[in-house]
Amino acid sequence: MTEMGKHARAAAEKLSMAPTKQKDAGLIGAAMVIRANVDDILAANAKDLAAAKEKGLSGAMLDRLLLDEKRIEAMAKGLEDIAALPDPVGSKIAEWDRPNGLHIERIRVPLGVIGIIYESRPNVTADAGALCLKSGNAAILRGGSESSHSSRIIHESLVEGFMAANLPEHAIQLVPTTDRAAVGEMLAGLNGNIDVIVPRGGKSLVARVQAEARVPVFAHLEGICHVYVDKDADLEMARKIVMNAKLRRTGVCGSAETLLVDEACAATHLPVLVKDLIDAGCEVRGDERTRAVDARVKPATEADWSTEYLDAIISVRVVNGIEEAMRHIAHYGSHHTESIVTANQKTADRFLATVDSAIVLHNASTQFADGGEFGMGAEIGIATGKFHARGPVGVEQLTSFKYVVRGTGQIRP
Amino acid sequence: MTEMGKHARAAAEKLSMAPTKQKDAGLIGAAMVIRANVDDILAANAKDLAAAKEKGLSGAMLDRLLLDEKRIEAMAKGLEDIAALPDPVGSKIAEWDRPNGLHIERIRVPLGVIGIIYESRPNVTADAGALCLKSGNAAILRGGSESSHSSRIIHESLVEGFMAANLPEHAIQLVPTTDRAAVGEMLAGLNGNIDVIVPRGGKSLVARVQAEARVPVFAHLEGICHVYVDKDADLEMARKIVMNAKLRRTGVCGSAETLLVDEACAATHLPVLVKDLIDAGCEVRGDERTRAVDARVKPATEADWSTEYLDAIISVRVVNGIEEAMRHIAHYGSHHTESIVTANQKTADRFLATVDSAIVLHNASTQFADGGEFGMGAEIGIATGKFHARGPVGVEQLTSFKYVVRGTGQIRP
Repeated sequence: MTEMGKHARAAAEKLSMAPTKQKDAGLIGAAMVIRANVDDILAANAKDLAAAKEKGLSGAMLDRLLLDEKRIEAMAKGLEDIAALPDPVGSKIAEWDRPNGLHIERIRVPLGVIGIIYESRPNVTADAGALCLKSGNAAILRGGSESSHSSRIIHESLVEGFMAANLPEHAIQLVPTTDRAAVGEMLAGLNGNIDVIVPRGGKSLVARVQAEARVPVFAHLEGICHVYVDKDADLEMARKIVMNAKLRRTGVCGSAETLLVDEACAATHLPVLVKDLIDAGCEVRGDERTRAVDARVKPATEADWSTEYLDAIISVRVVNGIEEAMRHIAHYGSHHTESIVTANQKTADRFLATVDSAIVLHNASTQFADGGEFGMGAEIGIATGKFHARGPVGVEQLTSFKYVVRGTGQIRP
Repeated sequence: MTEMGKHARAAAEKLSMAPTKQKDAGLIGAAMVIRANVDDILAANAKDLAAAKEKGLSGAMLDRLLLDEKRIEAMAKGLEDIAALPDPVGSKIAEWDRPNGLHIERIRVPLGVIGIIYESRPNVTADAGALCLKSGNAAILRGGSESSHSSRIIHESLVEGFMAANLPEHAIQLVPTTDRAAVGEMLAGLNGNIDVIVPRGGKSLVARVQAEARVPVFAHLEGICHVYVDKDADLEMARKIVMNAKLRRTGVCGSAETLLVDEACAATHLPVLVKDLIDAGCEVRGDERTRAVDARVKPATEADWSTEYLDAIISVRVVNGIEEAMRHIAHYGSHHTESIVTANQKTADRFLATVDSAIVLHNASTQFADGGEFGMGAEIGIATGKFHARGPVGVEQLTSFKYVVRGTGQIRP
């Protein structure tokens, strides 16, 4: 691991100066190698799947692990999409002149070495590695043992593509899953050779990384996202947004987990919203007033308000207007993504200004919490911390900056 | 301390929504109270000075501790200057439209609670507290025991000024210096109630904070700043810049500690630069080739290249062009501030792009490394880390952001 850290730092220095064309050629080359290796990738994945079945892994786990030709093609296409993004490195964030004639520029530079710790999805190897390369960073990847065969051949394919473009051999390194101490060493910062950790996986992985890491972490522990339907909400709009926010995909971090309905419109709006959800197969767990509108509503316990179901389940509560809604969100939320549905601009502005979440929306679904939907291209994850990166973490968020000052002999009085 | 953390978090929530006018009124009010309390501040400071003399503190330490009418007036004026800065909170960093009609804005928000750990300068109480307030953050201040009487009355003056503007009582809290465990608790994040730590003081304080803090730190451990005089440097410009970078003020972090001279111009430039420095009272410690040009040059040891003198001492080395200069900086530097003197634009561009420091300058003195000189107003310090804040940390750098998304009923396909 120590050697790996040194190699990563040396590669990062080279990558920080690598021209855009070279990085893009590496990514396009890696996509070609992945397509050429499709049979070998499928064979490696079959080994992982067989071992996982023997271990008795759940159907959802097996699905995360599974690669088929379509998923491998999506992975290759993903690399090409990242190649097509603008290169953040060297771009000017701001520039200004000083009265003494100094010209100051703020220029994006890479962060350095990014450590990625992930679980069973083997495609993270390609996605995360490619985002690091595009942003001029070296990557140290530690995948789950379940996907070790698949990750290894995907990693080899990337390295082959990158080296064909004369990129450093150690731009992306894969930690052998047999090294049990590796995660601990990565969280400690690998002797100063890892600058940031990105965990990709379930809550227990993220919690461990957040608790133990001695370097910055870009992550969200959970996405307990809320939709608040205000008394001035258009019912048809609220129906569309609630259904989409909860049920479009239930397993993503931006899916809504709690619906808050203003008591001033509960009589008209609540029964319709609850019926929509239950008729669509969603379990509704409600407070007393919600249970009164539909016999199929189950009772919500205190724990429900802070539970991320990631499933077709929603908790529903009637609140006394926007202020109680915001207090509920502040108390039970996870600072991820919240939406207000209202036709009243003033109410919306109060909500958008006050709610302390990475993403706040007015009259739109929480499922837009995604780097691609924001126009930022692929993302390595969504961060709920307030430092450096907040919200979707794309290639720009994987950079820092420096001040470049141009003078003509100025000295300070 | 636990109570203090809770009070800070509650105050931070209020401050995040405080209008600019209210915050500015608090700052201007605090300046008035400080001016009115000048006699009491002088009396408190006299107590601190007497105790410090009894303890046998050095002259430099006593000077840092000393307040006189001029310094107290500068402190009050500093508060008014911060009131006059633009309010970063609520300002729009970026905005864009998506093809589906969503309008996305990136809006600045405060970070939350800022912990400041400082040593003997009592004026940090006012400066740092005011920068936190202006940026909508609550502050927990822990000053050195030497300045405890002075800090206490300055803190009381701030609180009186802030409360007259109806700002929260706990916007700025001062930890009693008698609480020995306080620093450790602050570094641990005070049960999630401190979001970032800013150490203000010597290298040993900063080193401890960087090693032990479990929350982000804005700091620089040291400023080993370099001036590289290239073969294409104008000699007169190089003379002016070297003298200013080293000697304008030797105790600031942006002062130059090492001069690197290209061997291609060593015959013409080196003797003049060395003579200037020595004639001005600066001790020069040089490599063999530097010692050959002036008998007064002392031999530099390996340790000199990584020493921040903060004094009228400079290390000087002859290098084989820009590449060796940059290798020297990468090996011995502290990623703070470096300057190249050259008339060759291409050489300058290579230096500015490659050197991995928070601030890189062309044909200008390293002593410009300062938030005020950058036009950013007062600064709480200079950071050399790559996360969140890099370079001067002013009110903007004490903020985070959130995404505000405005729709008209959009759902995600």
